[in-house]
Amino acid sequence: MGRLGEATLEFGLGVPLVAGAAVGGPTEGGGPLAADFDHLYDDLVMGQTSFELAEREMLKNACFTALQKAALTPADIDFVLSGDLLNQIISSSFTARDLAVPYLGLYTACATVCEGLTLGAVLVSGGFARKVLVACASHNCTAERQYRYPVEYGSQRRPYAQWTVTAAGAGVLAAAGEGPRVTHATVGRVLDMGVKDPYNQGAAMAPAAIDTLRRHLADTGRRPEDYDLIATGDLARFGKEMALTLAAKDAGLPLAGRYQDCGDLIFDQEHQDVHSGGSGAGCAAAVGFGHLLRRLQQGELRRLLLIATGALLSPTSFQQGENIPAIAHAVAIEA
Amino acid sequence: MGRLGEATLEFGLGVPLVAGAAVGGPTEGGGPLAADFDHLYDDLVMGQTSFELAEREMLKNACFTALQKAALTPADIDFVLSGDLLNQIISSSFTARDLAVPYLGLYTACATVCEGLTLGAVLVSGGFARKVLVACASHNCTAERQYRYPVEYGSQRRPYAQWTVTAAGAGVLAAAGEGPRVTHATVGRVLDMGVKDPYNQGAAMAPAAIDTLRRHLADTGRRPEDYDLIATGDLARFGKEMALTLAAKDAGLPLAGRYQDCGDLIFDQEHQDVHSGGSGAGCAAAVGFGHLLRRLQQGELRRLLLIATGALLSPTSFQQGENIPAIAHAVAIEA
Repeated sequence: MGRLGEATLEFGLGVPLVAGAAVGGPTEGGGPLAADFDHLYDDLVMGQTSFELAEREMLKNACFTALQKAALTPADIDFVLSGDLLNQIISSSFTARDLAVPYLGLYTACATVCEGLTLGAVLVSGGFARKVLVACASHNCTAERQYRYPVEYGSQRRPYAQWTVTAAGAGVLAAAGEGPRVTHATVGRVLDMGVKDPYNQGAAMAPAAIDTLRRHLADTGRRPEDYDLIATGDLARFGKEMALTLAAKDAGLPLAGRYQDCGDLIFDQEHQDVHSGGSGAGCAAAVGFGHLLRRLQQGELRRLLLIATGALLSPTSFQQGENIPAIAHAVAIEA
Repeated sequence: MGRLGEATLEFGLGVPLVAGAAVGGPTEGGGPLAADFDHLYDDLVMGQTSFELAEREMLKNACFTALQKAALTPADIDFVLSGDLLNQIISSSFTARDLAVPYLGLYTACATVCEGLTLGAVLVSGGFARKVLVACASHNCTAERQYRYPVEYGSQRRPYAQWTVTAAGAGVLAAAGEGPRVTHATVGRVLDMGVKDPYNQGAAMAPAAIDTLRRHLADTGRRPEDYDLIATGDLARFGKEMALTLAAKDAGLPLAGRYQDCGDLIFDQEHQDVHSGGSGAGCAAAVGFGHLLRRLQQGELRRLLLIATGALLSPTSFQQGENIPAIAHAVAIEA
């Protein structure tokens, strides 16, 4: 337990991820990972009176479902670590209010789920907590209206734009219990490659993903072949291609055959009109705590490296002419 | 090292806070704590082209000044933990880009500085880091235009409204070194007392401060008299009175004589037109890493409990008719 190299935390035998849950919206339910969601909503309002409340409904549902699967109640949880894309992360704060559990709010955009898993594993393996709940959410309609245009406007979007996932994921880390274990975490640096197009976040985030991967492998002395799967968070189709190229050419790391991207996995790009593919804080969270955790639990995967990626812009920073810096946090989970 | 009671983390002999720095704007420079700032700016633009860039300039200045005082460079720092009030915490993300240090973004509004000190002390005392930089900022003009109205409009504000502090604070926690030590941290729960007036955040936050204080004392077996000073983050004049009343009447904790509030301390309410007093993520950070740290270093204070308080609203949650939930995180620092 401690530190490896530059930026990697090592958790000894690992911190068990004793349960995870994923919930999603109608587009996610029409995608190839539908069977890996614990709950799918038929529409985007989810019985609420606003899209913001719908996002919160998903986050709460994911949290309570994960707790239920672990046979726990909120009172059993020491800390909830949560984040989302809404201004002032209100989905997380209001969900923490309803859970009534000590709360640490996090934000590194769509990389937040791995920031949560990192700090959750630190708290548990450091002996500061017995059980920690980690959660993230995003909703297509709240993100579109906050970052771009309300969906009701029907704005046309560039073909390489990503589609913010309507989903939430939550997981329970515990000091003891059964489940795949979080063994390592590599905390990302903020990289700025000069990208300015807010529709091209895959290009902004791909270099950060490969930077974190490279440092993770250097710190741990591992090779890509030590992982059955390396999954980035939400680079989507074009960002994923860029990551593969950067890994092979710049970092000398051939990833083909063992590399996927959650934003690419979650939709069927042949039959769903999602442009370049999925993004959003709920993307890596729902695919991670749903599909990928299930594959680890069923023995299909033995060692997973989840590299959640985040574009650290705001509408203000973009409108003021700033670049789009990006970050990626990696977490190794082993069955 | 480990956990005490419900929500308190205990760091054994404590994690040394080896250096701190505070920078502020012109109103802060005209206030009673002027001498405790490392740098004071003459105007609100600070040589930049926007208020947002001015906020970032302050945050960077505080970070680099704290590093300089500790005779360190960014390369010596393992992690930077930072947050601010701007949407998507861009001041923190862009500062982390410039520092090029692994970055964990945090957000619990004006309670963020104590969330950072808590997680920083966890990382260091758990053996996961040798040196961590914790930083927060706020700027009156960026906060006013994002949360209320641009200051250029000259909107009249309610007399009980608070004045967002233009300041930044940064501190370095280290595995070894001289300085007051972070010995305990109590992580807050989100409390919702039904407050709906966004100008009355002191009322929203005071119950959260006393809830965290009560749990801190219960978890540690300490009494208020064990602290030379209990300082809340930014309740300001009216919130401070409310906290004193709540402590005495509801919690049976007479605090008078050993209780102050950073938002009350930072301005001279007789001679400065700051309404109820200071608020903002930079308030507890600058007073904590400036004035209070200096008093600890000079032996005027032996044991400090800093309870940073945050109102977890957003303009969207307010406009959609939601209450204003609040949180408070407490950190014990001992000389």
